[in-house]
Amino acid sequence: MTVSHSQLALGAFLMQTGHHIAGWRHPAAQADAGSNFAHYVSLARQAEDAKFDAIFISDSVGVRNRNLPSLSRTARADQFEPLTLLSALAAVTERIGLIATASTSFNEPYNVARKFASLDQISGGRAGWNLVTSSGDGEAENFNLDQHIDHAQRYERAAEFHQVVTGLWDSWEDDAFVRDKNSGLYFHPEKLHVLNHKGKHFSVRGPLNVSRSPQGQPVIVQAGASEAGRDLAARTAEVVFVAHQTFDEANGFYADIKHRAAAYGRAPEAIRIMPGIFPVVAPTRTEAEEKFQYLQELIPTVVGVALLSQMVSFDLSPYPVDGPLPELPPTNGARSRQQLMVDLARREGLTIRQTYLRIAGARGHLQVVGTPADIADLMESWFRNGGADGFNIMSWAHPAGLTDFIALVLPELRRRGLFRTEYAGRTLREHLRLQRPAHPAAAG
Amino acid sequence: MTVSHSQLALGAFLMQTGHHIAGWRHPAAQADAGSNFAHYVSLARQAEDAKFDAIFISDSVGVRNRNLPSLSRTARADQFEPLTLLSALAAVTERIGLIATASTSFNEPYNVARKFASLDQISGGRAGWNLVTSSGDGEAENFNLDQHIDHAQRYERAAEFHQVVTGLWDSWEDDAFVRDKNSGLYFHPEKLHVLNHKGKHFSVRGPLNVSRSPQGQPVIVQAGASEAGRDLAARTAEVVFVAHQTFDEANGFYADIKHRAAAYGRAPEAIRIMPGIFPVVAPTRTEAEEKFQYLQELIPTVVGVALLSQMVSFDLSPYPVDGPLPELPPTNGARSRQQLMVDLARREGLTIRQTYLRIAGARGHLQVVGTPADIADLMESWFRNGGADGFNIMSWAHPAGLTDFIALVLPELRRRGLFRTEYAGRTLREHLRLQRPAHPAAAG
Repeated sequence: MTVSHSQLALGAFLMQTGHHIAGWRHPAAQADAGSNFAHYVSLARQAEDAKFDAIFISDSVGVRNRNLPSLSRTARADQFEPLTLLSALAAVTERIGLIATASTSFNEPYNVARKFASLDQISGGRAGWNLVTSSGDGEAENFNLDQHIDHAQRYERAAEFHQVVTGLWDSWEDDAFVRDKNSGLYFHPEKLHVLNHKGKHFSVRGPLNVSRSPQGQPVIVQAGASEAGRDLAARTAEVVFVAHQTFDEANGFYADIKHRAAAYGRAPEAIRIMPGIFPVVAPTRTEAEEKFQYLQELIPTVVGVALLSQMVSFDLSPYPVDGPLPELPPTNGARSRQQLMVDLARREGLTIRQTYLRIAGARGHLQVVGTPADIADLMESWFRNGGADGFNIMSWAHPAGLTDFIALVLPELRRRGLFRTEYAGRTLREHLRLQRPAHPAAAG
Repeated sequence: MTVSHSQLALGAFLMQTGHHIAGWRHPAAQADAGSNFAHYVSLARQAEDAKFDAIFISDSVGVRNRNLPSLSRTARADQFEPLTLLSALAAVTERIGLIATASTSFNEPYNVARKFASLDQISGGRAGWNLVTSSGDGEAENFNLDQHIDHAQRYERAAEFHQVVTGLWDSWEDDAFVRDKNSGLYFHPEKLHVLNHKGKHFSVRGPLNVSRSPQGQPVIVQAGASEAGRDLAARTAEVVFVAHQTFDEANGFYADIKHRAAAYGRAPEAIRIMPGIFPVVAPTRTEAEEKFQYLQELIPTVVGVALLSQMVSFDLSPYPVDGPLPELPPTNGARSRQQLMVDLARREGLTIRQTYLRIAGARGHLQVVGTPADIADLMESWFRNGGADGFNIMSWAHPAGLTDFIALVLPELRRRGLFRTEYAGRTLREHLRLQRPAHPAAAG
């Protein structure tokens, strides 16, 4: 068993049919992945057999259905709700971490605290919460709002939401429940802590009705890269998912987050930064390129333009697809994502079509088409030079893209000593080498 | 295989350690049931092997911790969140129905619609939603409220909530998703239906991002027995859980609900009425009585008084425990439950202690202590004479109470032809012989 602090963390980002926008049309894709539970069981077990740190399920509480000609040609309209899906997968896996997305804008903190605490119990300490503020009007309209909450207010609410959730997770000390049949004492009353939170956005008394789990608290994951997102991540995140196209971006972000965290009194190793990577791998570069081109040719123009429009929160369909990206107004949606797209297009002088072809797979994340060594080189370089503590693997389609990565890239990473051959721990925290948070009463 | 319309529906109500308030202290109880997932797996599989229609998980979004001396002596403070628990159990069972409670007062309809639709997909059509309005201030205080929403307004909100949820479940026609890799069409745009709900309590655009499941819609379960609760049940419920102590009550309720349902144009067999039953069974009556007395003697006075206080939404601790139940003010909590307790105490002239001893197991539901034939006689009598379409089995402790019922009572029910020996269908609807709802577009 190899355990080393010089090893990568790896997540398997199991988005429905896969990450390439047309991947579902590939012969090796499971086209009904968004409604096929057995398929997810098989993916989760594959990822666990390969010793991934975690599987990750993103989320959207709505369908972006304003553009039906595009939507009806993508596999994005049906999906499992992440917490029900991961709970079910917890029952048929043993070791792999389970990270689900839940929005702070469209939930109540008591419900979110409970569900993740419950998943953490069910899974024996493998739960992680990807805290998002959500970014689309399509979601707000399902929650009594005409338009989405303002970006700044959303982050303010998110910070308080996080405070309430983590406070509720400390409702019980680790040894509160004695369950002594003889004396009749079920728990020690003095080991129960009522939160009594009264803040600007929330008033939550507590306590939570779930006992403290093997992890102490589920792992906190975040993905916001805006100014407000970085600040929240530096204060609260234990894992940061992020999208970068170049090492310089990754390196700058990495240094910035660890620097900000230090200012909040946190050690650099208390946060794992995991950029997304979209690998298309084959034994030779030619084969890898062919595989990628095959996927690219499956993209209808209407789908490509709609994808890019969504990424920049601006409708590009009136503009010539073979012309440049127009000037964009500031967005109330995901700001950092818009900027990423604009930077990419400007840096390389891309047309709208060229831009959407560049993001059709990775959606702004790092895309690598090449041999196992090419991909391992790039991962190793980012890892060794302060660009990443690990990666979130975004397969072009499921199961084929994940199977490829496991069969071709993992052996190369292992040969270099960069990835585990067996799990050393049982909880997600242990996989990620994150400390188990002590209960405040025990620490004091 | 026996299939008959003259057979009972049976649910296993899997409340943590069991239903008797002191049951967790029994040597045969799993005291950490509220935090022990493996234990729930074993219970669910036992119930499935015994061919129960469903397992049922109740819920409370809070801990009633105002009375710590009592609370700390009961096994009610830690539990799994029902939807995460049932999703996990879905992965390790095949046929049994999965009914979870979710509150219309402390959730958003889009989230509830999604989670149950997702559970219905994961389980292959076995999900049921027990719609409750919640009844305790202890819950409201976890959701930004100083006190609970008024009873009438709560039911008004619940009715609209139900309308939104079931509307969202019809977002997609059964055959909307074609996923044709060759043409690139993933779904038929004309088979997508946007809800566009704008009501007094909710504004929800839709569509839901989960496809229509094998059941069409999860089964709707309700338990309210107040005037408002009965009306909502008659209009919308497919299963009604209810608490009765006498056949006359049960018979009156049964007739009333079916009569009200008819007024809404619904057939009597579109609603299954399932009272709770708390059986303590042994080969002889003496042994059954001994078993029950053993349990009763495990109840601390402080726990008994607190239990009754909670049932009537009024603090009885200042009153002499061996004196009569005082006059009670009207409650904003569960009205029908308060009335049930008052009726019981008045009818039989019981003291506070005698009353709590009567409800310590069944909490107002039908309690039977006797032989397999005694229990089967009573169930058969209610079933044949218009008191019940089935029962929700409330075990005195888990696993022992469930194991007892399966080993002793089920064979007697089967001997009388009152319960299945094998599942005839695959979905919860099929077990309960409830029609699969046609999509409105298909019906039109």
